[in-house]
Amino acid sequence: MKRWGWMLAAAVGTAVSGLVQAQDVNLDMTGRIRAEALQRSQVMATLDHMTDHIGPRLTNSPSMLKASEWTRSQLSSWGLTNVHEEMVDDLGRGWEFNNASVLMMGPRPMPLHALPKAWTPGTNGQVEGDAIYAKLESKADLEKWKGKLRGKVVFTDELRPYKPGEQADFHRHDDKSLEDLIAFPVPRQRTASERAEDAKRFKERMAFAPLINQFLVDEGVLATVGISSWDNGIVRVMGGGSRKGTEADGAPAFVMIAEHYNTVMRALDRKAPVRLRLNSDARFTTSSSGPGYNVIAEIPGSGPNKNEIVMIGAHLDSWHTGSGANDNGAGVAVMMEAMRILKAVGARPNRTIRIGLWTGEEQGLLGSRSHVEKHYARYPEPSDPAEKALPVSMRSQKGSLQKLPGYDRFSVYFNMDNGSGKIRGVYGQENLAAAPIFEAWLKPFNDLGAVSVTQRNTGSTDHIAFDAVGLPGFQFVQDRLDYFSNVHHTHLDVQDHASEDDLKQASAIVASFAYNAAMMKSRFPRKHFVED
Amino acid sequence: MKRWGWMLAAAVGTAVSGLVQAQDVNLDMTGRIRAEALQRSQVMATLDHMTDHIGPRLTNSPSMLKASEWTRSQLSSWGLTNVHEEMVDDLGRGWEFNNASVLMMGPRPMPLHALPKAWTPGTNGQVEGDAIYAKLESKADLEKWKGKLRGKVVFTDELRPYKPGEQADFHRHDDKSLEDLIAFPVPRQRTASERAEDAKRFKERMAFAPLINQFLVDEGVLATVGISSWDNGIVRVMGGGSRKGTEADGAPAFVMIAEHYNTVMRALDRKAPVRLRLNSDARFTTSSSGPGYNVIAEIPGSGPNKNEIVMIGAHLDSWHTGSGANDNGAGVAVMMEAMRILKAVGARPNRTIRIGLWTGEEQGLLGSRSHVEKHYARYPEPSDPAEKALPVSMRSQKGSLQKLPGYDRFSVYFNMDNGSGKIRGVYGQENLAAAPIFEAWLKPFNDLGAVSVTQRNTGSTDHIAFDAVGLPGFQFVQDRLDYFSNVHHTHLDVQDHASEDDLKQASAIVASFAYNAAMMKSRFPRKHFVED
Repeated sequence: MKRWGWMLAAAVGTAVSGLVQAQDVNLDMTGRIRAEALQRSQVMATLDHMTDHIGPRLTNSPSMLKASEWTRSQLSSWGLTNVHEEMVDDLGRGWEFNNASVLMMGPRPMPLHALPKAWTPGTNGQVEGDAIYAKLESKADLEKWKGKLRGKVVFTDELRPYKPGEQADFHRHDDKSLEDLIAFPVPRQRTASERAEDAKRFKERMAFAPLINQFLVDEGVLATVGISSWDNGIVRVMGGGSRKGTEADGAPAFVMIAEHYNTVMRALDRKAPVRLRLNSDARFTTSSSGPGYNVIAEIPGSGPNKNEIVMIGAHLDSWHTGSGANDNGAGVAVMMEAMRILKAVGARPNRTIRIGLWTGEEQGLLGSRSHVEKHYARYPEPSDPAEKALPVSMRSQKGSLQKLPGYDRFSVYFNMDNGSGKIRGVYGQENLAAAPIFEAWLKPFNDLGAVSVTQRNTGSTDHIAFDAVGLPGFQFVQDRLDYFSNVHHTHLDVQDHASEDDLKQASAIVASFAYNAAMMKSRFPRKHFVED
Repeated sequence: MKRWGWMLAAAVGTAVSGLVQAQDVNLDMTGRIRAEALQRSQVMATLDHMTDHIGPRLTNSPSMLKASEWTRSQLSSWGLTNVHEEMVDDLGRGWEFNNASVLMMGPRPMPLHALPKAWTPGTNGQVEGDAIYAKLESKADLEKWKGKLRGKVVFTDELRPYKPGEQADFHRHDDKSLEDLIAFPVPRQRTASERAEDAKRFKERMAFAPLINQFLVDEGVLATVGISSWDNGIVRVMGGGSRKGTEADGAPAFVMIAEHYNTVMRALDRKAPVRLRLNSDARFTTSSSGPGYNVIAEIPGSGPNKNEIVMIGAHLDSWHTGSGANDNGAGVAVMMEAMRILKAVGARPNRTIRIGLWTGEEQGLLGSRSHVEKHYARYPEPSDPAEKALPVSMRSQKGSLQKLPGYDRFSVYFNMDNGSGKIRGVYGQENLAAAPIFEAWLKPFNDLGAVSVTQRNTGSTDHIAFDAVGLPGFQFVQDRLDYFSNVHHTHLDVQDHASEDDLKQASAIVASFAYNAAMMKSRFPRKHFVED
């Protein structure tokens, strides 16, 4: 703990950047927030309704629409203003599944545990076919298997031996691991040619998807089955097929638990004919790609900087086989609860505090990127369609960032998207001026285990949409719990694996961070932003 | 390792009991055994056929019969003699299931992962009903729910919160844990009144089973659902209903993964009607209780003690939702492989080496107990039917042990039934004279990790059938691997979780132990046997 002690002393006791001092933390308000969060919490009720009651929230699915409606009505009922949907273009088709099953009929009968990939067509009732192993990863593979797969159930992955689980499923930080997190590993810089290679591979993948989908249709493949990426009976499954519907739908596609997948592969290996009966009661709920919607709501500022924005958010969309309770029901429930708390304690922030519940995060931060492009900054659209299809970071020429009027009025964004584990600190994203601020803000929550500010960059979720255009966007350090062993993108992402006490703690801290940011004398400091 | 070093020194260098010296280990033969086991192993081929190909082997099920046939033909093909089935009376009805599924139709559609309890009736196709929570654990419960459960799917357990998995799934012994195992905890003695209480509770349970089965039939309950005893999507399921068919069959009964069970319970808790569609494609394959069969085979002795028996064994029966690969395909494959190895290396044992592949272990060591009663010793049958229905250990008067002629000709039995983990030592069962013998026998396998002899008693499997009548019966200390976290009585008990290298090591040690026991100058020493 020594190191944090030292850093806190620096933040509290001495002049650091002049931007913030510990006295900027209103301890009376922090106390009210903390009491509301820990003693009168509604975070589990919010999570329960959104996940157990409404269910999983695949981008543009009917239940995502329900969740959008319900979260808006909740935010309105708590007195938030400017509650609205914000359109995000071209998010793909709606899709849902009601049921799925795979039965091995022979060489011996056995129900196999498998669930469908999102955006793959249903089987139109029960269908039967023989299993065959065929790798379909390149044009050469497709050529090789042409004419040989009609009516077959194609197992597309190799058998994967069981990997012993030598770490505990469930993980909480301790002093040592939090200290280790502060050490900043100098990142390896990718060379221009490596980046070009990445872009090339990305383009190849993009080009192959329609080819294989068309192949599966043309060849009359009954279904494909892949192996779950985790062992121990966990179905870890995301999307497949054709989300946007601009290409062939492909075939019904399942992901199967490793133990059952391997059982089939061993049978095939000893030349035993494997007969399967499959059912995927899945369907596209819209016929073509349409817009999706972020949910936006505000507590309006009432001070001299009321036109400036402090933002908190999490993604409302989820994968489809659990109930998205941890990815990212937890983040959404905490962000909503933080807004409820601020209203409940009568906070009157100087700046406007805005909540964003994003859609399409799982498809590439689509909702949050769209929000940033609409309000703060964007790169110009390339005229070359091949370049345009690339993510901005992979384009050979990004062009110059086009800043909108909102860019200068934006202060800071806080995100939560690593399951339901409590907050142990903040990733500083190399914004050195942020560290002493966060350390001061965390101080009233040190006794709840939130202590660590690291300059490490963390990625892969919606704060990156802000960070990528030079706006301060942060994600919290959380206890991992069993997020990356049982829950992430699996059928076990249900409420059982969400920790109530942790969510209460996180709600208190997020509400406090939002309030503190809204009350700072100046806009939140920005790091030096280089457009490369 | 100090302590083992000391104990080995005692065994090897000094006079211990006079019964055995390290020089009794024929290192030439041990070397041949070891090479055959580690370099020309067939243990995985045996395991593969028995588990992946034949499948699970529920006592008296059709696939148990297949496994009996196949193991006998394998043992014959390796040149064993006196290969035969040995009848075990009244083992119950045959039962099997081909498929099972549970769909939540409302409040929102979601496939629920559940599998049937063995010996429960099928659903006769897909059936639909509403879920209801009802505890049915006593006559008072049955009275309370009479007339209220017709056509319902009864959830019989409370919601159980997720318990974080704070130990690694996969465990191997280290020096420390092996040393700890040597320490002998003085057992608490159960008083006469405690034992009477145990017997009373046992009788009550026995008496309640037919009542609830009849209740479920009379009340027209559609099905019952219980919660899996382990978290993380694992279906841990054993038997229910009526194995012997001497009472009502009860209702179709499922065990559901905790995450889905709790999802239903939370919906019921918020008064949402939960509509389920269930299918259990299960059936009794014989109409009344019939005999089952142990598999017995021998390598005949050719020395002066050829009428004496050294025995190795494991149970061939398994539960029904995996393939019984670890419980106890692993033990069976190792025991069969040990016999194969002994034939392959041309062993000519003095005593006869017999293998027993037991049936009915999961129902209470029924096969091995029957074997012991038939050949070695038995307690008299009580005339009181209530006493007769109790396990021998719970009877108020056991009577005097009746020794058969085989009792004196029996030397020692070795069992393996703790999954596929390699052998790290032997449980001595408080047979103090056995320790120096085992230490000497383990010495050529110390470099393969088999080092520890503990006097602890281990229970719950077939060596107890021997131990209970004063015959030397032992079970090995094994690395636990993920046996008690993923595998034991679960749908994940399939070949993936069996470790090839560990099984090879175990085969070598078992073959060597059997050979050494068959070559000892005297019969294996017996501990002082008190009939209480």
